[in-house]
Amino acid sequence: MTRIEKIFKRVNEIGADCFVSFDNSDMLYFTQADSEGILLIIEQKTFIFANKLSYDSIINQKPHAEVIQALHGVKSLQEYLIENKIHSIALDLKSTSAFNLETLRKNFEIKDATDFSKQIRIIKEQSEINSIKRAALIARNAFTKVYSMIKIGISEKELQGELDYQMVKHGAQKSAFETIVASGVNTSFPHHKPTDKKIEDGDFLMIDFGACVDGYNSDCTYTFLVGKRTDEERDFYNALFYAQTFAREFIAPNRTKAKDIDKRARDELAKYGLDKYFIHSTGHGVGLDIHELPNIDLSNDTLIVPNMVFTIEPGIYIPGKYGVRIEQTILVKENDVEILGYAPFMEII
Amino acid sequence: MTRIEKIFKRVNEIGADCFVSFDNSDMLYFTQADSEGILLIIEQKTFIFANKLSYDSIINQKPHAEVIQALHGVKSLQEYLIENKIHSIALDLKSTSAFNLETLRKNFEIKDATDFSKQIRIIKEQSEINSIKRAALIARNAFTKVYSMIKIGISEKELQGELDYQMVKHGAQKSAFETIVASGVNTSFPHHKPTDKKIEDGDFLMIDFGACVDGYNSDCTYTFLVGKRTDEERDFYNALFYAQTFAREFIAPNRTKAKDIDKRARDELAKYGLDKYFIHSTGHGVGLDIHELPNIDLSNDTLIVPNMVFTIEPGIYIPGKYGVRIEQTILVKENDVEILGYAPFMEII
Repeated sequence: MTRIEKIFKRVNEIGADCFVSFDNSDMLYFTQADSEGILLIIEQKTFIFANKLSYDSIINQKPHAEVIQALHGVKSLQEYLIENKIHSIALDLKSTSAFNLETLRKNFEIKDATDFSKQIRIIKEQSEINSIKRAALIARNAFTKVYSMIKIGISEKELQGELDYQMVKHGAQKSAFETIVASGVNTSFPHHKPTDKKIEDGDFLMIDFGACVDGYNSDCTYTFLVGKRTDEERDFYNALFYAQTFAREFIAPNRTKAKDIDKRARDELAKYGLDKYFIHSTGHGVGLDIHELPNIDLSNDTLIVPNMVFTIEPGIYIPGKYGVRIEQTILVKENDVEILGYAPFMEII
Repeated sequence: MTRIEKIFKRVNEIGADCFVSFDNSDMLYFTQADSEGILLIIEQKTFIFANKLSYDSIINQKPHAEVIQALHGVKSLQEYLIENKIHSIALDLKSTSAFNLETLRKNFEIKDATDFSKQIRIIKEQSEINSIKRAALIARNAFTKVYSMIKIGISEKELQGELDYQMVKHGAQKSAFETIVASGVNTSFPHHKPTDKKIEDGDFLMIDFGACVDGYNSDCTYTFLVGKRTDEERDFYNALFYAQTFAREFIAPNRTKAKDIDKRARDELAKYGLDKYFIHSTGHGVGLDIHELPNIDLSNDTLIVPNMVFTIEPGIYIPGKYGVRIEQTILVKENDVEILGYAPFMEII
């Protein structure tokens, strides 16, 4: 089945006449146009409603869709739907604004299609896997350049700036997300924003980054011990390293559920009494969005099957002290998993 | 009035018990916390509902709010509101997802508070103006470095990478948005994404960029004529240059309406028969969001008053050929306007 056939099968199942998405990742997925607009799918037909700003750019990309100039956004969409005798719309409520929902509800019956497209996008095609692999390789090569710059006295922001620069220089369209560089106590905040703080002797150093290629993202986190370290810090690091490794190696395609991977990481940390510091889920899908399905968390019954791509990234954070996170993006294959853009464990002395 | 008093006055006027926002710019504005969470305001009291991931980081920022650990996101918020006998919620429908609206609607009456906070944020305080000025200065200084690199043979992406790098190096938290570098025919797409295309002799070169400092953004576009140029290109450029200059100089604080600025730019271009190529509005507010109020467009009756900050950025785009946009961010003062981060008109020979 084509992507369009897959989504419309589900739209049919809930008795809707069409699928509408305001999510630009959906537009890229179903039409190959990387821009802003409203996506409409009716049976086998795909349409993009584009404003004047993006119209020419979309046409130039030769998308798999009819492009309609929409001078008044959602109002233009409405007029088209009324003309074409559409009565009900399948909508992803998470990627639709309340404003657009309220506007459309006045004229159409709304059917809940939340996560429909994300559930299709959860299984990657070969071309998508190739793009994610390229993104991971670019990120890895860029990091190799930055690795040699890490030393006591360089600041978080300097490393961030250099890494972002190197990723674009190596061929990334852009960074996949706002690069995190945290050192010392800042590593205790999972989503720290880089500051002018300089790397000090004895710091943990956490770098979370990814590249974006053809719209597809990679995602990876290294944590280093810089300079002198205590046995306590070493043990703390090792516990997390084991948890990440064992969670990954635990995956048996077509047999493991997402929640079991999460539990495996948590169980390992519990052996050291560190599970209470593991305050997020073990991972998330990666693709056109940096966070997509499957969520690797304790409540997710999803079976792990070939061609899923997701992160394994347990992390432990002691408030006021430090934190460690190690993250790899993996591709599920027939019998095992492949680590994308892997660089071996490294220490900074 | 404080920011909180201003928003609650409007919430009171529509008869709601509280204000809820899922917009992280609102959270930063009302609490000073730069993170992710749900903002709740009840009378003079401000709350942030934070998940485990962002909780410590928010606490560490000592926000002007009580921080509540919300393990289940909007569900945790709901429980709190029910316990505190809240019946009606004022919601900005544009920054709320349809999913959250539908969830909250089950237990509460929803009152439409769309743009309430944006209408308060439209008038900048001195500390906000200082941050935007710093952002504009950083962007300008970074650009000075990049300007000297512009030459025939350098690619759009090389210039983008260097400019982003220099902005962070000069003290930006990050780029304000995805930097646009377009050359040749690519300048005919207003929101072109940089490619490996090299700058050629005779190209137009368009660079649209900004820095982010303390969460506040700057926004600026230069268009250059690189190398040899025809009279037609020169006239095309000049027409736009006049339109931008005259639209800006037309502004009389407390007297001009937003729509009149837009009309002034359009009227100037019409003299040259070029108004049909001006396919977007003349500008937009700039602050914590890169696009906020006021919109400088033909339908906006908003009076321009001191301490508004917005862009003046007419642009003309001939499909398949080329385009020109010149953009400045300006601060409205008592009697005139101040250009933020201005660098003089420059040509590349």
